[in-house]
Amino acid sequence: MNTIEVINIGGTVVFAISGALTAANKRFDLMGISIIAFVTALGGGTIRDVLIGAHPVGWMQSKWYLIAVLAGVVLAFVFHKKMQHLRKTFFIFDAIGLAVFAIGGLEKALSYNIDPVYALMCAMITGTMGGLLRDVLCNDVPLIFRKEIYATAALIGAGLYLLLDFVSLNQQVNFIISISVVILVRVLAVHFKLGLPKIKVDET
Amino acid sequence: MNTIEVINIGGTVVFAISGALTAANKRFDLMGISIIAFVTALGGGTIRDVLIGAHPVGWMQSKWYLIAVLAGVVLAFVFHKKMQHLRKTFFIFDAIGLAVFAIGGLEKALSYNIDPVYALMCAMITGTMGGLLRDVLCNDVPLIFRKEIYATAALIGAGLYLLLDFVSLNQQVNFIISISVVILVRVLAVHFKLGLPKIKVDET
Amino acid sequence: MNTIEVINIGGTVVFAISGALTAANKRFDLMGISIIAFVTALGGGTIRDVLIGAHPVGWMQSKWYLIAVLAGVVLAFVFHKKMQHLRKTFFIFDAIGLAVFAIGGLEKALSYNIDPVYALMCAMITGTMGGLLRDVLCNDVPLIFRKEIYATAALIGAGLYLLLDFVSLNQQVNFIISISVVILVRVLAVHFKLGLPKIKVDET
Repeated sequence: MNTIEVINIGGTVVFAISGALTAANKRFDLMGISIIAFVTALGGGTIRDVLIGAHPVGWMQSKWYLIAVLAGVVLAFVFHKKMQHLRKTFFIFDAIGLAVFAIGGLEKALSYNIDPVYALMCAMITGTMGGLLRDVLCNDVPLIFRKEIYATAALIGAGLYLLLDFVSLNQQVNFIISISVVILVRVLAVHFKLGLPKIKVDET
Repeated sequence: MNTIEVINIGGTVVFAISGALTAANKRFDLMGISIIAFVTALGGGTIRDVLIGAHPVGWMQSKWYLIAVLAGVVLAFVFHKKMQHLRKTFFIFDAIGLAVFAIGGLEKALSYNIDPVYALMCAMITGTMGGLLRDVLCNDVPLIFRKEIYATAALIGAGLYLLLDFVSLNQQVNFIISISVVILVRVLAVHFKLGLPKIKVDET
Repeated sequence: MNTIEVINIGGTVVFAISGALTAANKRFDLMGISIIAFVTALGGGTIRDVLIGAHPVGWMQSKWYLIAVLAGVVLAFVFHKKMQHLRKTFFIFDAIGLAVFAIGGLEKALSYNIDPVYALMCAMITGTMGGLLRDVLCNDVPLIFRKEIYATAALIGAGLYLLLDFVSLNQQVNFIISISVVILVRVLAVHFKLGLPKIKVDET
């Protein structure tokens, strides 16, 4: 495994923990928790792969993803009490997961000759749709529709990656810079409580 | 672009507006509104493409669909006050969108050698699944399960198209007739409050 | 049709009835009921086919699946009063459906050269995701996340099938044994109210 794969696996673990904790709060059993953890961690990449026609979907081609999800579930089981008091740590990991998945998703879409504009959308999809599926399966209104600059952070980072790639920056340097920007945007958004505008509409 | 593509793009704009207004009512932010608009407008065709194995999915192959969705979001932002008082106009556009997507979906399925019976299902899927995903993501019970003759209108129009195609009617004439029938069925269903039978079951 | 196909069609009918009854309880109309019945019966296999890249998806290749769903809807319409008092009969049919779909899903994944570990996941997906989609579309929290040993029963049966296949047992005998084990696990789980552990977490 190269560095990027290691980071990708790390993102999978973090997103799996996030899914497992949400499912545990809903009083799902161990299987339900594992399914939600799996969907949260790998749902975004799965949707991207289905849309671009990459099959079988990515996670079926390496055992590490399944192992990463199971590790996330075990960690959530063992440390769930502590994790609820480690919100800041958890937030950083979530931001890293979002960043890695977004840029990784962009790269995969480009490697399938997807038009750059739609590759940007694949970046957002890879980073955010796992969390969206988690919320839909838990019967919640998806968080990302109201959260401070979340999918938007993925979009900004992926846009920067495309730009730096266009000026022929070294891919690994580009990867590091773009990922850092996504994380930075998330940190700033939460710190300064930045949000996007909403339409004010009377209930109909 | 030929006439059919123009109408298709028009349907995309209308469905995007419908999604954006629903999301705005849920107090989603601009990104959430855009995602819901996108899913409402292009979700049905996406599901059809995934089922029949057309990849990458249709909207990735033309920038017009993305532009149409963004136009719908902008229109919803600018005119949302007026639109809520233009329910009749909006209803007609929604009926046109349903009609165009249904017959367009049928044609695409047939062009992938899907059996006519299942192509009829693809017509319904293309016309209605975007709205269904919109409702699922907004955590509502999907409207189409209770709405006056909606998926059924798509089915009737698509069935007529198949029939007229079988008797070798000119494709463009057939397109216009079948689309008109879907719209007519919707208008009549809403005007006369027509519905399908339900099973009466005691709550369990 | 061979024996396995006949059993598969039987599973489709049963799952369609389950979907139709759930939708009827939500007061959906006839089209809504039919859609939910279809999704419940064929949604699991559809997700599996999309993930492994089998397209067009399986049910598009035989009219029997559509006929089986329609038969399930008609049966639910005609016998819904009786069926609500036949919970035990219904439970057995649901267990048979789960078992057949799980083992059938495993076989299809293996035939697409999916790694056995992920083929096991395909078995669970085929057996349970239809019911999950039914619950999501009806805006319920999916039952399988809290139900006694359900997806787990599919996993156990599929694991046994892999094991017996590895020791070169005759495929048809293996099919019968593995299906029986899934059904047995379900019966025991419900009879003894067996469940999987949960994480106890304070609401956040």
